[in-house]
Amino acid sequence: MIKMNLKGKDLITTQDWEVEELMQALELAEEMKKKRFSPEFTCILQNKSFLMFFYNPSVRTRQSFEIAATELGGHALFLEPKTMRLKSKKTAGETIEDAAKVMDRYGCGLGIRILEDKINAYGEGENIIREYAEHCNIPVISMAHDKYHPCQGLADVMGYRKHTGNDLKGKTILHTWGHGALARSHCSLQESMLICSRLGMNVRLAHPEGYALEEDVINTVQKNCSENGSEFSKTDDAVQAYKGADIVYSRNWMSEKAYEGGELNKQKEVEKALKLTDWICDEKKMKISNNALFSHPMPVDRGHEVTDGVASGSRSIIYDIAENRLHVQKAVMALTMSD
Amino acid sequence: MIKMNLKGKDLITTQDWEVEELMQALELAEEMKKKRFSPEFTCILQNKSFLMFFYNPSVRTRQSFEIAATELGGHALFLEPKTMRLKSKKTAGETIEDAAKVMDRYGCGLGIRILEDKINAYGEGENIIREYAEHCNIPVISMAHDKYHPCQGLADVMGYRKHTGNDLKGKTILHTWGHGALARSHCSLQESMLICSRLGMNVRLAHPEGYALEEDVINTVQKNCSENGSEFSKTDDAVQAYKGADIVYSRNWMSEKAYEGGELNKQKEVEKALKLTDWICDEKKMKISNNALFSHPMPVDRGHEVTDGVASGSRSIIYDIAENRLHVQKAVMALTMSD
Amino acid sequence: MIKMNLKGKDLITTQDWEVEELMQALELAEEMKKKRFSPEFTCILQNKSFLMFFYNPSVRTRQSFEIAATELGGHALFLEPKTMRLKSKKTAGETIEDAAKVMDRYGCGLGIRILEDKINAYGEGENIIREYAEHCNIPVISMAHDKYHPCQGLADVMGYRKHTGNDLKGKTILHTWGHGALARSHCSLQESMLICSRLGMNVRLAHPEGYALEEDVINTVQKNCSENGSEFSKTDDAVQAYKGADIVYSRNWMSEKAYEGGELNKQKEVEKALKLTDWICDEKKMKISNNALFSHPMPVDRGHEVTDGVASGSRSIIYDIAENRLHVQKAVMALTMSD
Repeated sequence: MIKMNLKGKDLITTQDWEVEELMQALELAEEMKKKRFSPEFTCILQNKSFLMFFYNPSVRTRQSFEIAATELGGHALFLEPKTMRLKSKKTAGETIEDAAKVMDRYGCGLGIRILEDKINAYGEGENIIREYAEHCNIPVISMAHDKYHPCQGLADVMGYRKHTGNDLKGKTILHTWGHGALARSHCSLQESMLICSRLGMNVRLAHPEGYALEEDVINTVQKNCSENGSEFSKTDDAVQAYKGADIVYSRNWMSEKAYEGGELNKQKEVEKALKLTDWICDEKKMKISNNALFSHPMPVDRGHEVTDGVASGSRSIIYDIAENRLHVQKAVMALTMSD
Repeated sequence: MIKMNLKGKDLITTQDWEVEELMQALELAEEMKKKRFSPEFTCILQNKSFLMFFYNPSVRTRQSFEIAATELGGHALFLEPKTMRLKSKKTAGETIEDAAKVMDRYGCGLGIRILEDKINAYGEGENIIREYAEHCNIPVISMAHDKYHPCQGLADVMGYRKHTGNDLKGKTILHTWGHGALARSHCSLQESMLICSRLGMNVRLAHPEGYALEEDVINTVQKNCSENGSEFSKTDDAVQAYKGADIVYSRNWMSEKAYEGGELNKQKEVEKALKLTDWICDEKKMKISNNALFSHPMPVDRGHEVTDGVASGSRSIIYDIAENRLHVQKAVMALTMSD
Repeated sequence: MIKMNLKGKDLITTQDWEVEELMQALELAEEMKKKRFSPEFTCILQNKSFLMFFYNPSVRTRQSFEIAATELGGHALFLEPKTMRLKSKKTAGETIEDAAKVMDRYGCGLGIRILEDKINAYGEGENIIREYAEHCNIPVISMAHDKYHPCQGLADVMGYRKHTGNDLKGKTILHTWGHGALARSHCSLQESMLICSRLGMNVRLAHPEGYALEEDVINTVQKNCSENGSEFSKTDDAVQAYKGADIVYSRNWMSEKAYEGGELNKQKEVEKALKLTDWICDEKKMKISNNALFSHPMPVDRGHEVTDGVASGSRSIIYDIAENRLHVQKAVMALTMSD
């Protein structure tokens, strides 16, 4: 079994971990997938408690983390801040420091999810999660926040490795904006670009005007690419972007102006996005690709981000990737939380 | 121990199972009641996760399923659709197919509860639960829906068997409408009539005009009776219905017009039902019966559906039946979900 | 290991237990803290289920009880009454007797939390919790109610024992009102005064006019003191109260008039309390004390009840006490619920 030498390490973005550490997590995840209920794994968090703190609700994240803790022999607590009397600008309550220092005594790890609609500006979620981490000795794991989604990134590349024979170097992944009615976070996209660029993939980004991702993240992706001998490119051509892509990742995300006025105007975002109907991943565009795999972090907004034909087609690996969430999270928890 | 040969089988109504399969579940439940924490049972779902999906909240169902999973060594997740961003007629979101196919990767089984106030027409809940089942290899168990409540039905007859010396053939059960302030589902009633008729009991149904149950269900009950040499009868006489009954099951349910106008008008249902004050199970009516046992799936609306004297009387077996929920669900989960 | 001879005993206030029983819980808690995951403890509630019934949400109470059950090998269910269709003055539903009698069949113990804003008069919470206890054979544990908070009281004195070399006799504890924006319950305060007075401590109480605690409780504290050769005193001097105190416990609580008009007027309480700015535990007042430890049950309303300097200072033991919640609850559950 792989050595557990990451005890206590936070995972807020994969960019904070060494490539070797990420590979260790991926290889352990693959082993855990093969031997899902093996006693060597089910004892790892025996009687331990993982605290899941959901500012935002979730489908897969809740299920996959809670089940990950269970399959490692432990227990995950489902906590919502509405029941936690935390201090805010408007109400008296407990500071993050106080909440964190107590959770540090109780749990073996702390997961936090905080997305676009619970904050007033891009970056606030990142700040909050790092404030918890500052006051905790136990590892803090992002369960998705406004900037990053490290466990999704690991699940993505676990899927890409499996479906390309473990050889990602030199493969091209297209991250393309999809129109839709959900006004989604940048986190999955940005995480994917970061981890793919570190594993030697060519990273292509396509979106209409007004939908740029964070400049610092783009700069880091470019740096990752140049360090790994791969290429980064951007385009606003919804069709030509597919040319020669080995993997297509189509997803909606919010515009640059989403927080104008001091809070997320979801209605306006949705209206704007729904007009850009060219931006859908469909069979015609996929034909230009290099017989690309279709990737998406789910939930899929079918008919907007992607057609049913592609999402349910033979090259779609969305359910495998969703399943991988469980395995990579078990691996990360084992590496960072076991004795 | 009883052989576990029902691996992967859904339980949406007891009518979908063979009588032999139901008897297997009942006998295992009785064994599990006797040896509640025996190691042969506590290892059955070790480290496995059962997904409980509650469109509607619940007292006993939540507790009994969550504890059933715990006592089998596993874990039950409490999930509410409000946190699941599912697609609906009005909002973008995930399809049932996508949600189901991922849960299928994560869990050992899926329980769903969807009752009258979450749907717009009788039968929609049944359709939804069967749609999940279509997309899942793992067993889907109804935790009560608009039409059926199979685990309640099993718990009922487990109680009847115990309190009648295991001999149900030829016994008469009266299902009688009770007035009240809760506008309840047909599910418990219909399930009870189905399973009792298959186990050889005479089934009697009493309700005021306007409160007919589903015609297809009644037809099936009649067919079950004729195949098992027992009798089915209907009456609108709130008193004479009790004559010679061995078991009396009194419960409120919605009228035939409950969904008129496209959604459940609960207020109107309650007002209408509260006027029919003759329809209460009381000591006087019980005297006409054959010293009948009193049965109810709880929660009991005392003073409406039944008097305190009957509900808390020496012939009431309501707490035993409530306890049986735990045992029958453990048995069903063991039979359908263990390796 | 300490003998488990309290099987089935409720814990609604420490005053209901003998001093020897409380000492047994404290000593077991200390042992459990030292050997947190020892197999002798992790088997105690194996496959058993503890029902946590939260009329009011909570941070530490939820976490510490759920984790306590987990570390004893069992499982805790998180239940909220909004999902339980209970009968109330305004709505039909299930009686407490019916709910309790079924939970009695399912669980190994029942925890209940019911605080000031879920009741219409001081004392109602106590009545409700005792009504559950009346109908349950399994132990009922208060997870904080309007009058008492026994597990907090045990956690407090576990901390005082540790930080004073286990010798509480003759030590002086000041319970002082703190102003603030939370309109808090009397329960932690009253419990602390009761248990401290029974363990031989001098108990001092300081609050402004209009903030008296329950007279019966004060009388019991005085009786406890006189039986144990210690002293009870009251003052309305926010500063001199600190003189010679070994432990200072500063916390906001509601005024005597909080329920005037038939329900808690939280807004009015907060407005009134925020004016009394002298009532803050600060460095200057602490200098008058006997180098006192600072105690608080958390969440701390910093800047109101206490300054940051004191709450985060070297004499603050608030995180230790918060951690103790876990250990004392494990001890109480082991003593009252194990076979």
